[in-house]
Amino acid sequence: MSDVQRPPPRLPWDPPDNFKKRVPDGDNRERLVCDDCQFILYQNPKIVAGSVVTWEDRILLARRAIEPRKGYWTVPAGFLEEKETVEDGAAREALEEARADIEVGGLLGVYSVPRISQVQMVFRARLRSPEVGAGEESLEVRLALWDEIPWRELAFPSVVSALRRFHAVRDLADFAPEVTTLSGWAEPSSL
Amino acid sequence: MSDVQRPPPRLPWDPPDNFKKRVPDGDNRERLVCDDCQFILYQNPKIVAGSVVTWEDRILLARRAIEPRKGYWTVPAGFLEEKETVEDGAAREALEEARADIEVGGLLGVYSVPRISQVQMVFRARLRSPEVGAGEESLEVRLALWDEIPWRELAFPSVVSALRRFHAVRDLADFAPEVTTLSGWAEPSSL
Repeated sequence: MSDVQRPPPRLPWDPPDNFKKRVPDGDNRERLVCDDCQFILYQNPKIVAGSVVTWEDRILLARRAIEPRKGYWTVPAGFLEEKETVEDGAAREALEEARADIEVGGLLGVYSVPRISQVQMVFRARLRSPEVGAGEESLEVRLALWDEIPWRELAFPSVVSALRRFHAVRDLADFAPEVTTLSGWAEPSSL
Repeated sequence: MSDVQRPPPRLPWDPPDNFKKRVPDGDNRERLVCDDCQFILYQNPKIVAGSVVTWEDRILLARRAIEPRKGYWTVPAGFLEEKETVEDGAAREALEEARADIEVGGLLGVYSVPRISQVQMVFRARLRSPEVGAGEESLEVRLALWDEIPWRELAFPSVVSALRRFHAVRDLADFAPEVTTLSGWAEPSSL
């Protein structure tokens, strides 16, 4: 069997074979239902929370130490966890990825990425102190001037969009977020 | 046992008792793991997409035919599905719950409800035609003037907040969404 035909390895979150597709009573879509205990596995899009973080006229960027897009630059962002608000998730990710203590501001963008069932929400934010550093998921961090942003080495389309939106509204106190759909690019997952 | 002490009813997406909390190998957080088949249930906050829909100066409301908050009034809203954009989710829910064909506009609010791990996103929207009707999850629908909104019979805090936000920005083409945290109220789930 060639590499192309080999099924992907089972991941910890992949449902085992006792989960079968069927339409539960009162529903109108196929769901995965456990044959043994009848538990219905409702799968829904995941939220990614992130931020364009500034110190004076510099923007916080982190170079990814993990796949997808290892080695490319991003703004701090990651999956929202249970019992967390979107703003708290953005602040936690800034702390985890860039050791950054931030104050979360206005919503810059809401990026649906339907291909991978994600909704990425990126805020404007300010550093409370300029002390930042690479967290476990980052190779390095930097505070870049606008003209220093490595556009060709950014990790994800939403990073490009959020940075552009940040620049467009930089002199505004109140602004509407950009609400749009992104196709993602080469990678199977994102941010 | 009084109403206050009675445990909430099991909802279709609640894991049954064979799921137990433990930290899976290679993880750093407690997850629900099935005792029988070892399936790990990774849970993340769910997105609810909804809309405040108008026809001229009337607002579309639907009375819920299902729990939670059966019999109370809501704006069309529901869980975002896999491979769906937030705007498409809001439009689908309007169609399903109120037979409403809508054009989705600006984002009115982003309501994190951490207690129940939801992020509720409500848009402004317009009906393409005034023909609406009760879908399967609604007892009835109505197009209400602002002064006719049954405030004491609204189903969820986010419905109240989104309607207020709608009213506050009614004359604006562009506006920032309200981004805030809601505690939910008596019910174990929401929208």
